[in-house]
Amino acid sequence: MTTRRQFFGYAGAAAAGAAVSGGAVVALDNDKPQQQAVARLISPYGEHQPGIAAPSPRHAELVGLKLLPGTDKAALGRLMRLWSNDIVALANGRPAPGDTAPELAVANVALTTTVGFGPRVFELTGNKPAGLDDLPVMKHDRLDPAWSGGDLLVMVGADDAVSVVDAVRRLVADAKPSATPLWRQSGFWNGTGSEGQPVTGRNLFGQVDGTGNPAVGTPDFDSTVWSSDGPDWFRGGTTLVVRRIRMNLDTWDKLTRSEQERAVGRKLSNGAPLTGTAEHDELDLEARDTDGRLVIAENSHARLSHHSENDGRRIFRKGLNYVQDNGPNRESGLIFLSHQADVAGQFLPLLARLDAADALNEWTTTIGSAVFALPPGFQPGGWLAQKLLG
Amino acid sequence: MTTRRQFFGYAGAAAAGAAVSGGAVVALDNDKPQQQAVARLISPYGEHQPGIAAPSPRHAELVGLKLLPGTDKAALGRLMRLWSNDIVALANGRPAPGDTAPELAVANVALTTTVGFGPRVFELTGNKPAGLDDLPVMKHDRLDPAWSGGDLLVMVGADDAVSVVDAVRRLVADAKPSATPLWRQSGFWNGTGSEGQPVTGRNLFGQVDGTGNPAVGTPDFDSTVWSSDGPDWFRGGTTLVVRRIRMNLDTWDKLTRSEQERAVGRKLSNGAPLTGTAEHDELDLEARDTDGRLVIAENSHARLSHHSENDGRRIFRKGLNYVQDNGPNRESGLIFLSHQADVAGQFLPLLARLDAADALNEWTTTIGSAVFALPPGFQPGGWLAQKLLG
Ligand code: HEM
Ligand code: HEM
Repeated sequence: MTTRRQFFGYAGAAAAGAAVSGGAVVALDNDKPQQQAVARLISPYGEHQPGIAAPSPRHAELVGLKLLPGTDKAALGRLMRLWSNDIVALANGRPAPGDTAPELAVANVALTTTVGFGPRVFELTGNKPAGLDDLPVMKHDRLDPAWSGGDLLVMVGADDAVSVVDAVRRLVADAKPSATPLWRQSGFWNGTGSEGQPVTGRNLFGQVDGTGNPAVGTPDFDSTVWSSDGPDWFRGGTTLVVRRIRMNLDTWDKLTRSEQERAVGRKLSNGAPLTGTAEHDELDLEARDTDGRLVIAENSHARLSHHSENDGRRIFRKGLNYVQDNGPNRESGLIFLSHQADVAGQFLPLLARLDAADALNEWTTTIGSAVFALPPGFQPGGWLAQKLLG
Repeated sequence: MTTRRQFFGYAGAAAAGAAVSGGAVVALDNDKPQQQAVARLISPYGEHQPGIAAPSPRHAELVGLKLLPGTDKAALGRLMRLWSNDIVALANGRPAPGDTAPELAVANVALTTTVGFGPRVFELTGNKPAGLDDLPVMKHDRLDPAWSGGDLLVMVGADDAVSVVDAVRRLVADAKPSATPLWRQSGFWNGTGSEGQPVTGRNLFGQVDGTGNPAVGTPDFDSTVWSSDGPDWFRGGTTLVVRRIRMNLDTWDKLTRSEQERAVGRKLSNGAPLTGTAEHDELDLEARDTDGRLVIAENSHARLSHHSENDGRRIFRKGLNYVQDNGPNRESGLIFLSHQADVAGQFLPLLARLDAADALNEWTTTIGSAVFALPPGFQPGGWLAQKLLG
């Protein structure tokens, strides 16, 4: 079920582009999904920035940048024109103009670039999307300023880490006159199963992570993710919350598998709800075991975050696993990425609810937080956020 | 040329195993090399540890461990039996026994595990391979103890970073009674071209890196890499030098492309010698330009490291690119890996020569160094270094 949905989602993302250029097209043979691997160009054009609905990339890097003093609306517009140029070249497997190691740009690695604006940008431009504010600090948060905030976001994802590093380097260099990196985060995801089929993927606790997402291309997805009211320039845009969440693998490991499954309310084997058998089975939130206990526990993550328990509010999550080494010590976690039309309306109530009661809080700690407005996509001849900055 | 050679090399590495187990085999269709991507199991068995001759993995992690006080030869033998078990499971796409997140072990990601012993191990066991000593500090070295030394090495490589992280976690956990991590290094490589074909791959200076290697499966390769004299237990083994080399991309970038090419003696476009047109053309070390200057300069890296300039001494290099972030700052470099039968006889003279005169020294600084003896492979029923520790 997911397999199909995600596969179509990906195909959709590519097909949405005005032109899949560069001479190669995404192979679309539903019976042989592994052939996807051969030619993977995702058009840079479209109504939406194409990386958003695309499946989680194998590798990605996110850079949060801080605007330099003196950067005004016009300078931001120049940067967006420059970046839009870079984005088109990179998506087509060409080096961004000015790349000093141009041969590192390799085609067919499904490279996408996604750009966003932090709240402070709108002090320069006006027209701030409603609700786009830094999130309040939660009780369980241990935020490190080194992983938090940012006026601009640039995120590059691809099948290949070398291409990601090369692309980010050029994008950061092009921003130099107006913005400087505040933080960088790199992560990885495996959305490919043993037989080459698309799968939901797992976080470093071993859990299938992403199941409850609205399926790409459905009306649910569109209303969850894309902004339809608010400032005109932002129609077809979305917001992104970036939370760096440390996961304590050592204490998590001390649990039995059934304790681990109870904390989420889903099975480790295939991600099915504890009340079901297949990954995409609906949760039965009323079901009780023979002792009368709720099968999907009161404080389980899947219950507390489920839309039926949140006045129908949904989000679209895309995680990236990360590891960070400090000499002999390793930290593991999730770069939690959540898309929604409206941060304050959709994300914040859910976050507050989970912070108050989520069983997972015992093993997870958020150490970084940032929010961005992601402008809609652009068409050939146009550029990113042209309506806001042009 | 490389394409073919490396492709056969890889096929060879898989075919060399007594059994490609787990029900899937490496797809060997020379006309459709991209089909390799579908089923990629590399047998854990064979005369040699299979990761050595396999192409550079997309991702790898290396962990240098320090033996705990009191660890004796018997304890080391127990660990090698445990690790051999883990290695067989992991290579077959199964979780290592005891994995607390077993679903993270995914098949068909060409996972290999490679194990080595630092010089101090032989104080416990005797039978040290000749010449296996920590390298002397070179004039240009700025060694950080945090990246240097180690009594045990475990290295996991695969197409998928999640599988690598999961495997390493289990291997390190199994070592806990006898050894503890000293350092961890993660890197990435792209050995796949835009059309899915195997390629040599590039470092972060953008250079094709690996061309001069002896081709896997040739007599040159075998005599370069595998130990044939020395202690009996070590026949079919090799040594590995791990050097963490920082690369200054900012100052490198200030050069023109032709200055960059002169520093190495090869073209950036395709890695061909400045005296040739194709990647694998022989270097013409005598050729001069119209001004009478040597085309491949006196102090160029490719000249100084070429075997004809080094009494025929060769090594087998396998690099991994790395990036390391420190807040807003990024360090880039190469985890330089060199295999040779004999460190003191093959590697050290070359290193000393490059340290004295190599043009590249201006943009590269070695910050970590370690040497290991890599025992030969094992067969079903056997285990790693059984002849040394059994
Ligand atoms: C490291 C921290 C977290 C981990 C390990 C984690 C893990 C999971 C897992 C395993 C699931 C069930 C499978 C699925 O539907 O994807 C899930 C679902 C979900 N999580 Fe999280 N999560 C984390 C943080 C968060 C945060 C911070 C939020 C939002 C504030 C969130 C919101 C959700 C939502 C909305 C669902 C889908 C629920 C449904 O509709 O059934 N999660 N998460
Ligand atoms: C970051 C540091 C280094 C960089 C960027 C680098 C880069 C290169 C490049 C671009 C080539 C030419 C293509 C090829 O044959 O692979 C090369 C060749 C070579 N390098 Fe390095 N290298 C580095 C360090 C070293 C070190 C430390 C050694 C050994 C001590 C070494 C030994 C060699 C050898 C033996 C060759 C092949 C020469 C031949 O047979 O033509 N390199 N290197």
